[in-house]
Amino acid sequence: MRFDTVIRHGTVVTASDTFKSDIGIRDGRIVALAAELTDADEIIDATGLLVLPGGIDSHVHLDQPSGDGIVMADDFDSGTRSAAIGGNTTVMAFCIQEKGQSLREALKIYHAKAEDKCHVDVSFHMVITDPTPEVLGQEVPALVEDGYTSMKVFMTYEGLRLRDDEILATLDTARRTGALVMVHCENEDAIRYLIGRHEEEGKFAPKFHATTRPVAAEREATHRALSLAEIVDVPIVIVHVSNREAMEEIRRARQRGQKIAGETCPQYLMLTADDLDQDALEGAKYVCSPPPRDEASQDACWEGLEQGVFDLFSSDHCPFRFDDPEGKLNEKGKRHFRWIPNGIPGVATRLPILFSEGVMRGRIDLNTFVAVTATNHAKLYGLYPRKGTIAIGSDADLALWDPEKRTTLTNDLLHHGADYTPYEGLDIQGWPTRVLLRGRTIVKDGKPAESDTPTGTYLPRGKSALIR
Amino acid sequence: MRFDTVIRHGTVVTASDTFKSDIGIRDGRIVALAAELTDADEIIDATGLLVLPGGIDSHVHLDQPSGDGIVMADDFDSGTRSAAIGGNTTVMAFCIQEKGQSLREALKIYHAKAEDKCHVDVSFHMVITDPTPEVLGQEVPALVEDGYTSMKVFMTYEGLRLRDDEILATLDTARRTGALVMVHCENEDAIRYLIGRHEEEGKFAPKFHATTRPVAAEREATHRALSLAEIVDVPIVIVHVSNREAMEEIRRARQRGQKIAGETCPQYLMLTADDLDQDALEGAKYVCSPPPRDEASQDACWEGLEQGVFDLFSSDHCPFRFDDPEGKLNEKGKRHFRWIPNGIPGVATRLPILFSEGVMRGRIDLNTFVAVTATNHAKLYGLYPRKGTIAIGSDADLALWDPEKRTTLTNDLLHHGADYTPYEGLDIQGWPTRVLLRGRTIVKDGKPAESDTPTGTYLPRGKSALIR
Amino acid sequence: MRFDTVIRHGTVVTASDTFKSDIGIRDGRIVALAAELTDADEIIDATGLLVLPGGIDSHVHLDQPSGDGIVMADDFDSGTRSAAIGGNTTVMAFCIQEKGQSLREALKIYHAKAEDKCHVDVSFHMVITDPTPEVLGQEVPALVEDGYTSMKVFMTYEGLRLRDDEILATLDTARRTGALVMVHCENEDAIRYLIGRHEEEGKFAPKFHATTRPVAAEREATHRALSLAEIVDVPIVIVHVSNREAMEEIRRARQRGQKIAGETCPQYLMLTADDLDQDALEGAKYVCSPPPRDEASQDACWEGLEQGVFDLFSSDHCPFRFDDPEGKLNEKGKRHFRWIPNGIPGVATRLPILFSEGVMRGRIDLNTFVAVTATNHAKLYGLYPRKGTIAIGSDADLALWDPEKRTTLTNDLLHHGADYTPYEGLDIQGWPTRVLLRGRTIVKDGKPAESDTPTGTYLPRGKSALIR
Amino acid sequence: MRFDTVIRHGTVVTASDTFKSDIGIRDGRIVALAAELTDADEIIDATGLLVLPGGIDSHVHLDQPSGDGIVMADDFDSGTRSAAIGGNTTVMAFCIQEKGQSLREALKIYHAKAEDKCHVDVSFHMVITDPTPEVLGQEVPALVEDGYTSMKVFMTYEGLRLRDDEILATLDTARRTGALVMVHCENEDAIRYLIGRHEEEGKFAPKFHATTRPVAAEREATHRALSLAEIVDVPIVIVHVSNREAMEEIRRARQRGQKIAGETCPQYLMLTADDLDQDALEGAKYVCSPPPRDEASQDACWEGLEQGVFDLFSSDHCPFRFDDPEGKLNEKGKRHFRWIPNGIPGVATRLPILFSEGVMRGRIDLNTFVAVTATNHAKLYGLYPRKGTIAIGSDADLALWDPEKRTTLTNDLLHHGADYTPYEGLDIQGWPTRVLLRGRTIVKDGKPAESDTPTGTYLPRGKSALIR
Repeated sequence: MRFDTVIRHGTVVTASDTFKSDIGIRDGRIVALAAELTDADEIIDATGLLVLPGGIDSHVHLDQPSGDGIVMADDFDSGTRSAAIGGNTTVMAFCIQEKGQSLREALKIYHAKAEDKCHVDVSFHMVITDPTPEVLGQEVPALVEDGYTSMKVFMTYEGLRLRDDEILATLDTARRTGALVMVHCENEDAIRYLIGRHEEEGKFAPKFHATTRPVAAEREATHRALSLAEIVDVPIVIVHVSNREAMEEIRRARQRGQKIAGETCPQYLMLTADDLDQDALEGAKYVCSPPPRDEASQDACWEGLEQGVFDLFSSDHCPFRFDDPEGKLNEKGKRHFRWIPNGIPGVATRLPILFSEGVMRGRIDLNTFVAVTATNHAKLYGLYPRKGTIAIGSDADLALWDPEKRTTLTNDLLHHGADYTPYEGLDIQGWPTRVLLRGRTIVKDGKPAESDTPTGTYLPRGKSALIR
Repeated sequence: MRFDTVIRHGTVVTASDTFKSDIGIRDGRIVALAAELTDADEIIDATGLLVLPGGIDSHVHLDQPSGDGIVMADDFDSGTRSAAIGGNTTVMAFCIQEKGQSLREALKIYHAKAEDKCHVDVSFHMVITDPTPEVLGQEVPALVEDGYTSMKVFMTYEGLRLRDDEILATLDTARRTGALVMVHCENEDAIRYLIGRHEEEGKFAPKFHATTRPVAAEREATHRALSLAEIVDVPIVIVHVSNREAMEEIRRARQRGQKIAGETCPQYLMLTADDLDQDALEGAKYVCSPPPRDEASQDACWEGLEQGVFDLFSSDHCPFRFDDPEGKLNEKGKRHFRWIPNGIPGVATRLPILFSEGVMRGRIDLNTFVAVTATNHAKLYGLYPRKGTIAIGSDADLALWDPEKRTTLTNDLLHHGADYTPYEGLDIQGWPTRVLLRGRTIVKDGKPAESDTPTGTYLPRGKSALIR
Repeated sequence: MRFDTVIRHGTVVTASDTFKSDIGIRDGRIVALAAELTDADEIIDATGLLVLPGGIDSHVHLDQPSGDGIVMADDFDSGTRSAAIGGNTTVMAFCIQEKGQSLREALKIYHAKAEDKCHVDVSFHMVITDPTPEVLGQEVPALVEDGYTSMKVFMTYEGLRLRDDEILATLDTARRTGALVMVHCENEDAIRYLIGRHEEEGKFAPKFHATTRPVAAEREATHRALSLAEIVDVPIVIVHVSNREAMEEIRRARQRGQKIAGETCPQYLMLTADDLDQDALEGAKYVCSPPPRDEASQDACWEGLEQGVFDLFSSDHCPFRFDDPEGKLNEKGKRHFRWIPNGIPGVATRLPILFSEGVMRGRIDLNTFVAVTATNHAKLYGLYPRKGTIAIGSDADLALWDPEKRTTLTNDLLHHGADYTPYEGLDIQGWPTRVLLRGRTIVKDGKPAESDTPTGTYLPRGKSALIR
Repeated sequence: MRFDTVIRHGTVVTASDTFKSDIGIRDGRIVALAAELTDADEIIDATGLLVLPGGIDSHVHLDQPSGDGIVMADDFDSGTRSAAIGGNTTVMAFCIQEKGQSLREALKIYHAKAEDKCHVDVSFHMVITDPTPEVLGQEVPALVEDGYTSMKVFMTYEGLRLRDDEILATLDTARRTGALVMVHCENEDAIRYLIGRHEEEGKFAPKFHATTRPVAAEREATHRALSLAEIVDVPIVIVHVSNREAMEEIRRARQRGQKIAGETCPQYLMLTADDLDQDALEGAKYVCSPPPRDEASQDACWEGLEQGVFDLFSSDHCPFRFDDPEGKLNEKGKRHFRWIPNGIPGVATRLPILFSEGVMRGRIDLNTFVAVTATNHAKLYGLYPRKGTIAIGSDADLALWDPEKRTTLTNDLLHHGADYTPYEGLDIQGWPTRVLLRGRTIVKDGKPAESDTPTGTYLPRGKSALIR
């Protein structure tokens, strides 16, 4: 057999297996795994390295409009370049429906934003903000047919949040079409109520972002979303779970027999509400929703990853510049936490953090790492078996990890648009030194490959493995 | 000592104690408990009888408007007479605020309805349907001062249900004023969604009332109400719990540290959804919300009573005539379950059923019976120590129970306005043969006392024992 | 009516009620409760005081042999005097069967120890250490008939611990005779194993008493005892629960339908394992089993009291002198924690601590205080209605509490035989200033009444309210 | 590349992946996976077939002595042939230590029993029945070094059961040596007690085997085993879990942070206690321990497999002939259930039943099937990556499944020594038509391959993946 590329002497890791094998690549796909493959145009030596499926980050915000003069720090160019640096080969971004807008219109805009800019492969989740009968009854069924097989709904944020009847209608459409719905679970009315009480008490600093979005507001919405899905009889994904109580709702739902997926993110393993409580508005850097909680919540999220409560580990990358009037420290945000844009950068740091803190510290094993960072994303969002694993016929999306490499995180390593990382100074063991997208090297020695040409492509998707 | 009335040779039962004692009554109050009291105008022989505090039914609907030509079967005359027959001396009825109406106006109307008609003492819960800033900010604080210390909110029924922001505002008012909020927990949007699906499938029979209001819709709303109360930091009462899942939410909330009360009703011990599934619209007799569930749910509710999950056992008396165009079988109701008026009669049967099925069968003890049917109602709704117990200084509201008396329930025993009882034919052991209201006999030999004059009075109330 | 004694103007508290009433006493019994009673030989003014049932402490060790030259610090004289000082009028002590001894012999010895020495009424639990067929088959049935209606078994302590087959046989005897079994739940083998590991590691200080008896060893034994009782189908009492995990076993058992009682003690509300970790063997003062845990465990035990998981609040009084070769600091005990005698004094401090930390701080209400310190003990151990409440016909065992009195605990207030109290220096609000045993004052102004004659009597008992 | 054997056109399934690939085998190992492999001595066409790792059954009893003239129905010849027929390539059997015997002696005997007889590869778990200091301190460490890395202990069966101190000592040895301990969890003393009660009541039929071994006895022992492991701080395996309550103990232990594995078996998915309640001693066929429970327990076990509570699905093959004086219906067994030998045949039916009832009915997916029947066994018992998966370098142990093949189970299909199967008449979809052991076909068309030579070999093992 003749190959375009062969990766030699590496240790291949899948969601269940770990074994020494060479990998033969032809036409961007994996066509052979064998003890020894030699006949290739390009031979990459992976001695001492782990060869993992390229990461799939199914929860990434790029180039979204934010109103009020706030500008998201990453477009599809910088965002996907940063993703690649962090060992990813696919990201799923959000396409936000404006009120009154058709989903087709929205998708057209986002496709245009992504066109010719992506350094990794890309797909879109449709954020439903205006679930009219036409949108749900006409557009969604056609779009699911066309490979847009996931939707997201928000239970918080004025302008985005849906009421229960709207969520039910959306879930019902998912049931009828075989789409999968992701839910951001926080009770907007409760948050509003608490903001009101904080305002009465003159509490405006960044740290009060956390106290106005308590665990109870997340737990409530999580249980509600799961209950509505139970009533409609349809699977859902609970995204970015931050604490034990919300996590237990997922466990309870599964014990009731529901088919669901759960997701957590690096910020819930690494940050706490104390990070928001710093001098000089520094806390604004850590403002995201749900907010980071406390150390017991971090332990809970680790437990959830280790025990399979969480299927997905995503970044919820939602980057804003910090010291910038179009970013975290805009004029209104300086005076009141509610105007600090919500979100933190993380598409590049997701995998190194989990590798270092999870695998290297013995909290999860390598196969679980692959499952929660790649394989499960592919399966749950309809990209499997093309993406998410190392198997005959799959795309040659590969990350070569050096498990011994030690790095101190600094913002300039990450190639994203934000002017900071929440993890500045963190010591990391293990790094994805080389990344291949469909057989072509896009990251080498931890930096964009020489050409740095955007070769990412748009990925239509099939149905979720949760849908039977 | 000289008394107006003495009850001799009975066995006195309170929420904690059972002992032989005579009872001396003067000016409508209990003034002495002693081994032997003799010097009285009237001596009542209670040999072989149990002397219990008169029942307090804190969940009774009387003379409420229903729209669409439906007429509630009991006004304050028949309803309170029936209550007395069933061993009660106090009922708490609902005063429904119409949209746009001030609470004062509403109360004026309900006071007029009750005026000179009540055979037992009466108080009102205010049902908040239009929680404007004026209502919550001005009226409620003044009304709480005046002794209207409880409110009820609905999470279901179009026209009654409040949104989360309205519930939060109401709870916040309760927090500020020391009022107690009762919550009817069912998710209206979920029910609407299911009704729509049923209609698509041509399902209109009474039994579908139950399948459109599943346990998940009750559990969801229960958890939501508890979470909102947790966020506001205020006690609430979860009324008419029908099943284990909702009950577990109460347990969980208490384990989180919340101060709350739980209530269940006879229909959840004695009926199931199968009762709604009968020929010839017979099932309409059992249409109430939440609907009765199944035998496992009955077991759960018994467990909840025995183990203190439920503090309150109430009737949720809400009577409609069955074979009547103004009742259950109105023209629209015959064709679609959603037009069958919701509710069943039960103010007279609550106590005998619990006595017979609970105490006589050994599921709960007599003291628990007194606690959940009288004492806890008084404590939780601010009538204690005037009402709800047998103690020096309390009103002489007493029910003399013959624990050996065997009765087969028939509708004509109950003296209510409905033309049926859901418990027709049930064999009962134990009956409140004589009832005294503030020392005056109002029921004798199980029938209205000769005079049958309405001597019930309105009861302003203090703060709930849950409020500290 | 003419009385021996009348208590005037007090506030009477029972397990369910609180009301102003005078109390009329004749022949040692309560014969009247009334608004005003005047005609008596002795009038006690209780203005501003609470009149509570005298405390019943159902878990007290007095004058037990300990081997190795260790001497228990209280006999029945000092122990019951101290009990009275602390507001108690009844204690239940343990009668320990020696190996090979008949229960009758053992009882004879303990009756002799108690004879003419008791300042409060006394009863005995039989500790079964040698459950031969003769003991279980012949003696126990006869003894239950004679009013010895409770047994205790140990799952720990060499020489006391029973194996599972022995526990099952004892529980079976309880089932056949209607006796109630108390169980000390710690896994002896696990403790032995851990002591071995500690010895290997040279860990001998008092604090290692706690680490060799971890929560898991208590939780395990608790679940096992409950499971054996479930299999035999008989009620049991889980004594001295120290932490949340063991407490949850009680909740789980009740949810399985078991009839059981739970007990906790002051040391689990007030102490932690840190108290054992002090310089100069000071920690030996706090050595008891199960050991005190941590603050979260204290919170759990408060929750358990407030929510009815625990029916009983007892002292587990088991006093040894501290600085004494016959006490805590015996020669062997100084060198190895396992030789420090197990137990702390507490019969006098139980009620003031719960009153001050529980009632005064709003964690439990007064009626719960009465229930868990008196009424439930009487009901569960067959002394009700003679003991444990304030009702017509009950013994006039009363404690007059001054809720405003502030005391700093010091050992010399307590009149027990130990040379220390674990609560030295604790500030207390509320104190039982006067105590009456069957109508006769035994404590006045917080001190033994002038006569100080032991008038306590032995109490045979009926069946537990848990046995139906 | 040149291969000994190539499997063409099959669908390869691992514990995480499913993909079309040819498989190249050389020297008994998998050396290539590729889209097309052709150059081989032997080409096997797998068109339309699934190619799975050969099953590993880690819980099999073969040729064990039983006393009382009872003879186990399978030796290593018939037992391993039957295993192969059922799609297995490795079994782990038990080597029972007799009292007083050294483990080396016992192993010598079992090696002799297996020598030259095995049709699949074989390894041994050491059953510890006499945990003397010498056995635990000297023998086990050396044996673990030699590849005997697992032990089993029994909490039931006279002669086998260990006391808690013995279990602790065994677990401690496991902790020190890195061995893994399997535990049979039923409380022997409780069972003995219940047998005694049954005998008193004259209950001797086979069905009383189930009522004398209730869920509580299994739950108790499960919790105890887990607690002892927690105290020692060592992983364990809870084998053959039969019901929800025991399963929940595993969940709880994991939530406490314990590293443990759980196992269930086909009998707990397919049988109930009703199967033991049949005329003419037919029920004896289903006597095994723990006994099958009820349908709710079956649902629980399915939930446990689907949700990862159970890592292992094993047969607990323990075959006896039914209508045979040396089997189930021996003379004593006919008269009293306790003499019916415990165990049922199942090594051949394990995989087809799970495939048909689990995968084909949609309860679990194919990858989970592979995980719980092969991969996890290899990982947990130290055979990975040599066994349990399809990966480069692994043994070519493969089962070719025809997912469309429909079979009605009859005993003569199974080639075991028993004269019955508990699943006679069960309709099955899917069958392992061809099985390869290290590249050599041992089963063809569902029958032993022509040669039928025993080529199975003994497998020393490394440490469990649970041991870190």
